[in-house]
This record gives sequence, C-alpha cells and structure tokens, in this order.
Amino acid sequence: MPYRSPVSELRFILDKVVPLAPVAETELFAEATGETVEAILTEAGRLCDEVMAPLLRNGDLHPARLENGVVRSSPGFKEAYGQIAEGGWVAISGPKEFGGMGLPMTMTVAVNDMMSGANLALQLNPLLTQGQIEALEHHASDEIKELYLPKLISGEWSGTMNLTEPQAGSDVGAVRSKAEPMGDGTYAVTGQKIFISWGDSDVTANVCHLVLARLPDAAPGTKGISLFMVPKYIPDANGNPGVANSLKVVSLEHKMGLHGSPTCVMSFEGATGWMVGEPGKGMAAMFTMMNNARLNVGVQGIGVAEAAYQKALEYAQDRVQFAPIIQHADVRRMLAEMKAEVFAARTIAMACAVALDMARATGEADWEARAALLTPIAKAYGTDVGMWVAEQGVQVHGGMGFIEETGAAQFYRDVRVTAIYEGTNGIQAMDLVGRKMMDEGRAAFRLLQEIEDEAKAAREALPDLAEDVWQATESLREHTEWMLGQGTQDRFAGAVPYLRAFARVLGAHYHLRAALAEGGASGRVKLAAVYIRRLLPQYAAALAEAKEGAEGLYALSVEELSA
Amino acid sequence: MPYRSPVSELRFILDKVVPLAPVAETELFAEATGETVEAILTEAGRLCDEVMAPLLRNGDLHPARLENGVVRSSPGFKEAYGQIAEGGWVAISGPKEFGGMGLPMTMTVAVNDMMSGANLALQLNPLLTQGQIEALEHHASDEIKELYLPKLISGEWSGTMNLTEPQAGSDVGAVRSKAEPMGDGTYAVTGQKIFISWGDSDVTANVCHLVLARLPDAAPGTKGISLFMVPKYIPDANGNPGVANSLKVVSLEHKMGLHGSPTCVMSFEGATGWMVGEPGKGMAAMFTMMNNARLNVGVQGIGVAEAAYQKALEYAQDRVQFAPIIQHADVRRMLAEMKAEVFAARTIAMACAVALDMARATGEADWEARAALLTPIAKAYGTDVGMWVAEQGVQVHGGMGFIEETGAAQFYRDVRVTAIYEGTNGIQAMDLVGRKMMDEGRAAFRLLQEIEDEAKAAREALPDLAEDVWQATESLREHTEWMLGQGTQDRFAGAVPYLRAFARVLGAHYHLRAALAEGGASGRVKLAAVYIRRLLPQYAAALAEAKEGAEGLYALSVEELSA
Repeated sequence: MPYRSPVSELRFILDKVVPLAPVAETELFAEATGETVEAILTEAGRLCDEVMAPLLRNGDLHPARLENGVVRSSPGFKEAYGQIAEGGWVAISGPKEFGGMGLPMTMTVAVNDMMSGANLALQLNPLLTQGQIEALEHHASDEIKELYLPKLISGEWSGTMNLTEPQAGSDVGAVRSKAEPMGDGTYAVTGQKIFISWGDSDVTANVCHLVLARLPDAAPGTKGISLFMVPKYIPDANGNPGVANSLKVVSLEHKMGLHGSPTCVMSFEGATGWMVGEPGKGMAAMFTMMNNARLNVGVQGIGVAEAAYQKALEYAQDRVQFAPIIQHADVRRMLAEMKAEVFAARTIAMACAVALDMARATGEADWEARAALLTPIAKAYGTDVGMWVAEQGVQVHGGMGFIEETGAAQFYRDVRVTAIYEGTNGIQAMDLVGRKMMDEGRAAFRLLQEIEDEAKAAREALPDLAEDVWQATESLREHTEWMLGQGTQDRFAGAVPYLRAFARVLGAHYHLRAALAEGGASGRVKLAAVYIRRLLPQYAAALAEAKEGAEGLYALSVEELSA
Repeated sequence: MPYRSPVSELRFILDKVVPLAPVAETELFAEATGETVEAILTEAGRLCDEVMAPLLRNGDLHPARLENGVVRSSPGFKEAYGQIAEGGWVAISGPKEFGGMGLPMTMTVAVNDMMSGANLALQLNPLLTQGQIEALEHHASDEIKELYLPKLISGEWSGTMNLTEPQAGSDVGAVRSKAEPMGDGTYAVTGQKIFISWGDSDVTANVCHLVLARLPDAAPGTKGISLFMVPKYIPDANGNPGVANSLKVVSLEHKMGLHGSPTCVMSFEGATGWMVGEPGKGMAAMFTMMNNARLNVGVQGIGVAEAAYQKALEYAQDRVQFAPIIQHADVRRMLAEMKAEVFAARTIAMACAVALDMARATGEADWEARAALLTPIAKAYGTDVGMWVAEQGVQVHGGMGFIEETGAAQFYRDVRVTAIYEGTNGIQAMDLVGRKMMDEGRAAFRLLQEIEDEAKAAREALPDLAEDVWQATESLREHTEWMLGQGTQDRFAGAVPYLRAFARVLGAHYHLRAALAEGGASGRVKLAAVYIRRLLPQYAAALAEAKEGAEGLYALSVEELSA
C-alpha cells in the first residue's frame, strides 16, 4: 500500500485536540471554516498521494545533479513541482493582495506535514519559498514586494536562504560575505555560501536568493549583517527573468539522504542585490523567516515519521514469522509507540501553528509568547520523533529494513538532517531555556498551569492517566522554577533533556485531550495510555539529567575525553 | 586524525575492570599473560590503524559487486584481508591442533572491537569464519575438522552462515532447503538462501558455507533441520579447492550501509554437502556458532561507536563557532555521554567474553549461565550504543555530519544493521526474559547480588555513586522477581525495555568499578559520574514501561493502529 496522507487524522486534531475554531473566529482568518479545511486537506492529500509520493525513490536513486553550472532535478520533480505550484500549494498562507490564499499558518503546517511524508526532498523547495514570502512580507520595500511576491506565491519562482558560510554555521555573526553599494540603490554582493538547499534548479524560472552579507562599514558580529535579495536572473522591466546575475553553483554536496534536494555551494561574485529591510537588521528579517521554518522543519520530521510508520505497519501485517509479526508483542509495542509519538509531535506542532495564527490575528502578546515558546519544542521534538520512528521503522522490517528497495532506509537517511538544519536541536534547546525564558518563565508557567488545570478536570473521566499527566507537569514546573535560578552554562548543559521532558509533558497533555474527546474504550484512550504509561515516564530521567548542570561535564577535561 | 585502536583502553579494562587474570590462571588459557595481551593488542591495533581503517571509505564508495557470477570485493580489501590472515588474526581463539593460537575468546573480542571500529565491512568476513570454526570444532566429524579447520584458521578459506530464506528469518524453523542423501555419505543440497554476508568473494581461495536444510524424512519445524558443509569448491584429494560446487550467487543486495560486505542471495542447486553433527540437530550446532556471533555483533556496535566518538571528538576540537564547539555545554554533554556509553557497552561485552572463557576452562555451570545471561545484553546494548553514538556523532558534526565525505554518516548507516542481524535486538530481549530466565532467574539474581555487594562496599569511597548503583540494582531485582511471575506475553511485551534497564545497571556497575580502581579525581570517577548521574536514571522509565505488560498493546486493535 502506498503512502496515504493522514487527512482524517489531521481533521480530528484540528476539530478536537488543537481546535482551529478560535482561529476561524478571528476576522483575519474567517475563511478558515471547517469546509475550507476539509477541501484543502482532501485536495492537497490527493496531490501528495498521487503525484509526490510516487517520486520519492526517484529522488533518492537519481539525485539532483550539476550540469554545466545548472542544476537538473530528479526525474519527475519538475512536473510534480508544476502541479504543486498550479494547485496554489506553495503559499496558501501567502498574502491575498499578492495572490496568496491568506489562510492560517495552521493550514500550511497541515499541508506541509502531508507533503513531507510524501516526498521530503521535493517539499523542501516550497517550504523555503514560504519562508521567503514571509520575510519579504514583513521587511521588504513595496517595490520588492510587488516584483517578487506574486511570482513566489504562484510558485513561478522559488526562494532560498543563504546564511551559512564555511566559518559561519550556528555562529551566523561570523558571516563574511560583502555587499558594496553601487550608488543606484543596488549592491554588489560577493561571498561564498554553503549548504544552500535548492540553491538552483530547473523546476522554477527564477531562483530568488535572500543573502546575509555585510556593508563595507558594518559593525562586527550579527549587528553588522544586512539582508539582500539576489535573484538568479535579474527581473526585466516587465518583471520577467532577464539577464543572468553574477552568481553560480560551485558544487553539490554528496549527502546521506535527501538526494532529491540539491544542496549547493553558492558563489556570489559581485552579484546585483537589493537590500531587504534596514542596514544591520538582516538577522531580524532572517529570524522572521527562520521561526516559521523551524516549526515547519519539525513538521518535516513528523511527516516522515508518519510515512515510516505507515510502511512498518503494512509490513508487520504482511510479514509472517510464526504469525503475522504484528501479533508479536515486541513488534506491537514498537508500532503502538511509533503511532503515539507521531500523534504527540503532530499536536505540539499544530498547537504552535495555532498560537502563531492567534498572535497574528489578535496581536495579543500572550499568543506570541506561546508560539515563541513552542517553536523550539516543535522543531526539536518533531525531528527527534522523525529520527526515532524511522529508526524503529527499519527495525520492524528486520533484514529487509536495511535493503534500500524496501524504502524504510530512505526515511531513516532522509530525516536525519532535520535534526540539524534550521538550527540544530541543541540550538533549539538553548533557545528554549535561554531566550524563551527571558520572561522569567511566564509563558512556560502559563502553559503548564493550563495543562495542570485540564489534567485536574480530567480526573473523573480518566483518573489514572490524568493523575500521571498532572504529576509530570508538576515536576516540570518545579524543575523550571529551579532552572530559572541557575546560570546560563548550567541551563545550557541541561537544555536538551529539559526540552525533551517538556515535549513529553505536552505530548501527554494532547493525548489526554484526545482521549477525553473520544472517551470510553476508543482507540484514542488506548493510544493515550500507551503514551502516558509507557513513554511519559521518561520525563523524570530527562529532568534528572538536566539538573546535573555543567560542572560534571567540564570536570572531565578535553584530555580526559581523549584518553 | 585517523582512527586509533583503543589499545590502552582495552588494557585498562582487562587489567582493572573486567580482569582477564582469572582466565589466565586456568590451565587452558595459561598463555594469556599480560605480556601476550599487550603484544596481541598492539600488533592487531597496528593492523587496524594502518591497513584496515584507511580502506573504510573505499568499501562504502566502491561496494562489492557481482561480475559473471563472482563477487569482486572493494578495492584494497583482498590485500588487507591477506594481511589479516597472514598475521593469524582470523582465529586467535582457534584450536591449537589446527593452527590456532588457542587464546581466550576475550582476546578475540578485544581484537574484533578494534577491527570493527577500523572497518566493519571487512571485519565481518573473519567474524563469520570464527563462528564457523567454533561450530565445526564442536560438532563436525574428525574428517571435516582436519580438512577445513586448518584452512579456515589460517584464513586461506572463509566461512559463511546460511540460515535465512525468504520465509524463514526469525522463524528459522520455516527453512525449506532440502538435503538429499546420495548414498556415498554426501548430500545434494538444494534451496535459496538470502542475506548471506560474504556469501562469495575473491579474498579467499574457497568459501565454506554452513547451510541449514532438511533431510527428506525430516520432522517439521526446527527439529527437522540439519546442518551441512557446502564448499564453493569441493576439496580435492590434497585438500585444495577442486571442482566448483553446484551453487551460485544470484544477486547482491543494495544496502543502506556496509557496502564493502557483499550480502548475497545464494542458490544451491543439488550442491554437494557433508553433514555436520547429527541429523535434526542442525539448530543446536548453529546455536554454538550464533551465541558467540551474537556477542561479537554487540562488539561490532561498540567498535563503530568508538570510531564515531573519536571522529566527533576531533571535529569538536577543530570546529570553531564562537569557541571550539567542544567548549559548548551541549556538545560537551554529547561527547561525555558518548564516551560513557562506549565504556559501559565495552565492559559488558568483555564480562560476557570472560564468562565464556571461564566456562570453557573450568566447565562450571555458573560461568556458563553467566555467559548465557550476558550474551543477549551484550548484543542488544552494544548495537544500541553503536547506533546511538553514531547518531550523536553526526549531530556533533552539524551540517557536515550529513555530508558523506565527512565519514560520520557512514558509521550511522553501517552500524544500523547490527541491531538486526544475528537475531534482532527484540529477539535478544525475548531470549533474555525467556530462555535465559528458565533457571527461575538464578543467574540473574546471582549477578545482581554481586553488583549490590560491590556497591555496598563502595559506599565509603564513592558514597553518591555507590548509592545510585545499589538503588537501581535493587529496583531491577524487584522487577525481575515480579516479572518471573508473569506469563510469556507480558514478559515479551516488556523485554526490550527490561534488557535496557539491565544494561544500564551493568554499565553503572562497571563504571563504578573503574572509578574505584582509579579513585580520587581521576577521569574514571568523572566519567562514572556522567554515566551514573545522567544515564543510569533511565532505568526507572524502562522498568515502568516493562511493567505495563502486553494488555495495553493488544487492546489497541490492528484497525485502531491503522486508523
């Protein structure tokens, strides 16, 4: 059985677990009715199942390649991309005035979830364009908006993010690329960028690079970084691709997975660029792009996890060893836990998306803080779940899992990068315990209070599960209080396990909500029990690790680590 | 810095943590003195570092391939294998009367550890031969022994294990291959075997297949399975490779990793074979082979983990983002935990090997039971650690980890299969809670008592660490008692987390021992603290999961899993 987009699962979540209703009640998103949701998910799901998923292995077997300086994409990708663009799927949350549907980010997230499961390498292309649209929408001049947004939203052109340089990865402030003002409002951009996903391709008529670079008199560090739009072809007077810009793809990387997505080394050689936003404010503009990209990378992990789970579930029913292996307790355990993890990660991502939409529609700071808090958790946990479920998917397949033709291995390889790009999961965790707690934990405590209140209210209907959730949340609250009294180094040393504990509590919370919604002896109650009884207990070990702080780590010298 | 075999680490373990001394005090292994150990490790280490490790990427980039029915191995493998054989490294534990060194299995394990880190795909070849030597030693007729053992021990010929058929994986009893007696003491073996590692190659002059097949009148299931020696070339009167046997390699698998090891589909077409052991006792003979193979597959995981750790450690010192990234708390945490895991898994494997040697040298049932108990733990935990450390190794490398040229990705891909072959880790866990507890847990309780006694004795020197170890062991003891009262299904449902909890306790135990041996502010004490304070706490969540039993898993119907 081929991949089937989880349309009904997403609908259930948006109806009952992380309701979209409050979003649809805002003026801004009044169109996001149940009918629209239904239509969007069904239509996008069809595209995923029928067009994108059948090309998954093509991308793996026939990687994008560089021919005479031009990237040729994997067989079938150009046509499939054409259908994505034609259907309007590149930018359903894009601004209406430039041709977008203006739908909530939550809908984009739902569609990205399905598309990631269908074909991660191809989905990465529109995902990057989505980020660019958002950055331009918030920071670009009207002229740039009018020129670029319609083409990006329609999918005629695609967008890229050019941040990383060999010496500047997590330390973006180390960027050395230069932008020289030419006196006519344009800049000559020069520098080398690496790890540029879809840095070039033949699926769109133009590739629009957003490039971080420094003005000649720029301050050192992140404050001296500005953002530039540097298109592959400079638009002519009619806004069509004109002369080729002075930039090129130097080479493509040989990667463990995601072969269908060309990862480019880019060279800008005095390329013509236009500043986006203000001088020295490039990082701020980039962060607009990055925050939603982070959420959506988490969603990539979830999408791959869904696909890996579906494949393993099918194999476990077909493969007979003594009995169909799904009847063996350990295989059943793996599958039940995989499904429970996918649900948890997916609801957290949805909750983050709803918070983003509510923040946008209402302007309320509390919603903004909620979205900001959930973003690193959604990214890191979503991609952790992607890796873990793909790994278990291989295991369910036994020896066949190691054979490429089976497909389980590709998920395992492809998804690995999601825990790295858009800020490694370690960076996400530091963001959570650092920047996202600069409100003295207010946003976190508010969320934990809501969870505790709901757990209390659930005590009558589901006493055991509710009690476990309440207890774990209470421990997390206590730990958070303790953590806020610690220095940066100690927080950072425990950041990753802290984030994992937080995700466990959130996952349990949404499972409990789903169980309450369906009740009785429903599958939702049983799945919630799998998560809360079998997986949630890991929070305690994670918090114990987080509490150890930094001292013991630095006590072990580099020499002792090398011994 | 290229791979460096962990010679001094292995010596420390064999001196202070899992002492080889008692083995060397037996008559059988009197030659295993400290001097011999030193010489063996140093010499083998040199071969690993200088000959095997430099070919690691060759195997990945240039997989073994099938040409006109013959497997051509990866460039350089034939020559490197020649040096392994020439040095006598194929069978240092092989029987002396046939040219082996007769050294303890513990030495073989130590050498396999280093070789696996250097080049897993190449090391798998002698590993399989080692298993075959052992099976023949215990079960073959004198005639077969005299003909094959000298060639296998010298490495002139290699050995394979032909168990799996398309319908017979974990369910070995489903084997359908047939063996027809020809009346002259030989058998005509017919059938198809899959997943045959090194099923053919050009590195040895002959390939000796041990094949599971059924006699015409055989009982169904495992009791009807016999074992046959089916050589690629039938030895002539002088014991040299003679006429080609009726068998062939049908195809090679395309695998996620371990490309240097040809994984063959084999077809036996009335091939001439000789029975090894008695009719219907093929499984027993195969188990001899499999038990040590299981331990040594665990060791493969450990070897790869060591190599992945070394690479990540080096990168973390070289790569500067703000500071050398090894100075960042989260990277430091990853590295410290990787190192702590490698130590734990390595000492468990060594303890298993020492128990095997003591059992062989003394014939004592207690040692035998100890070895039997530790084997599934060493296999599953060693390979889990292999996967986890390789995964973290990629993460430490950030974006570079996803690029194949870096090498971190190869470890991640290669090691994945070790959790699957020689019995999946789920099978290992079922073996632990099933077969290995059929003594009513006697062997387990004896081991746990020893750990508790040592922890108590350590309370003065290292109060906190000792207390943690004692407490975890006590919980494991209680859980084990509870588990022995449960039915098979409930045990099996909790088998994997139970095994993981057991491994955590064992790992903590050996870390504590190392800390006691060095004491003070030594790196060993600090590393033990990393393991015991940060990783050991996971045992509680694992036991909680194990205690859930099967009910909740089967409550969730296949339909609900598919919803």
